[in-house]
Amino acid sequence: MQLPSSLLENAVNEFAKLPGIGKKTALRLVLHLLKQDTDAVQHFGDSITKMRKEIKFCQRCCNIADADICSICANSMRKQDIICVVENIRDVIAIESTQQYNGTYHVLGGVISPLDGIGPDQLTIETLVNRIQKEHTQEVVFALNPNIQGDTTIYYIQKKLQSFPVKVTTIARGISFGGELEYADEMTLARSLQNRLPVESYVAGR
Amino acid sequence: MQLPSSLLENAVNEFAKLPGIGKKTALRLVLHLLKQDTDAVQHFGDSITKMRKEIKFCQRCCNIADADICSICANSMRKQDIICVVENIRDVIAIESTQQYNGTYHVLGGVISPLDGIGPDQLTIETLVNRIQKEHTQEVVFALNPNIQGDTTIYYIQKKLQSFPVKVTTIARGISFGGELEYADEMTLARSLQNRLPVESYVAGR
Ligand SMILES: [Zn+2]
Ligand SMILES: [Zn+2]
Repeated sequence: MQLPSSLLENAVNEFAKLPGIGKKTALRLVLHLLKQDTDAVQHFGDSITKMRKEIKFCQRCCNIADADICSICANSMRKQDIICVVENIRDVIAIESTQQYNGTYHVLGGVISPLDGIGPDQLTIETLVNRIQKEHTQEVVFALNPNIQGDTTIYYIQKKLQSFPVKVTTIARGISFGGELEYADEMTLARSLQNRLPVESYVAGR
Repeated sequence: MQLPSSLLENAVNEFAKLPGIGKKTALRLVLHLLKQDTDAVQHFGDSITKMRKEIKFCQRCCNIADADICSICANSMRKQDIICVVENIRDVIAIESTQQYNGTYHVLGGVISPLDGIGPDQLTIETLVNRIQKEHTQEVVFALNPNIQGDTTIYYIQKKLQSFPVKVTTIARGISFGGELEYADEMTLARSLQNRLPVESYVAGR
């Protein structure tokens, strides 16, 4: 694709670096921005660079945050002695959208996947285990995608927690095995949170 | 969708203003940028605001340009006495990609569409007619989408040019009626440029 302006070309190339955005789509987006007024486009650019520069990760739960501690950890109305363990921030957002969960989170940053070279050390598992011990957590709810990697991760963490007086559960299998938690509708997600199971029965049932 | 950070929320809302980008896609794009290093994201934001602030429209052909005159008009290797009339910048880019056309362009900024409230005065038709007269243009090639609005526009401009010694052609109907020029493959577009027809025979054939 030959573009008649290097300014346009730079902008298109930047958009085309985003996942799922091809050159044609990038061009459409850039030409759309070209039609907006300068202030609106300035605001678009600024909101993104500001976000990247100023966003933080919660020191307690590894969720994204505007401060050192995220808004969920800082909220005294939420049950601070229950931790929902998720793979990533998108899963926090999906569960929050159900408005059915009132505890805290722990964002692992991925799941154990030897084929992808991801072992326990690349995840925030140690932080989680230390946190559970220190905070005398009452319950850990695993909300991982129902697949081999998710199950491996649950099994690994559960073993680390065996000596702790903590109840360990997982969200119910409302979501079919191999499905993506993030794309589940809110009802399914809400129900699988309500019907959560002790992990022992879940692991035994396989 | 509840987001755990207002910085994230602002960036997602900005992305979701783009055409065809929903909230979930916006979130994916923003979380992707969050994983890139700060410089890369700064560069992304800057390339877009710079583009919007500094891009110009060619004073001759209304194409986008980095200077007062676009790179196509400024290129002395191109035939300056032939003008390809297109609806928008995307069509310039599509035709340039065929590498089959060596003249100049004129970007109308749309087509005549009474139902959408777009009349000749909202387009750059007067600029085009003046340009053809002043530059003693040899040939005008219409490359408009083959639909009612495109045909109306061709008919309107052709009547304005009747007293001028200029050959008026349209690209051949390689593209099916009702199709979108911009999505035609390069071969079809190239062939319809090669097989262009005098407009009189085209209008008569309807
Ligand atoms: Zn937190
Ligand atoms: Zn030009």
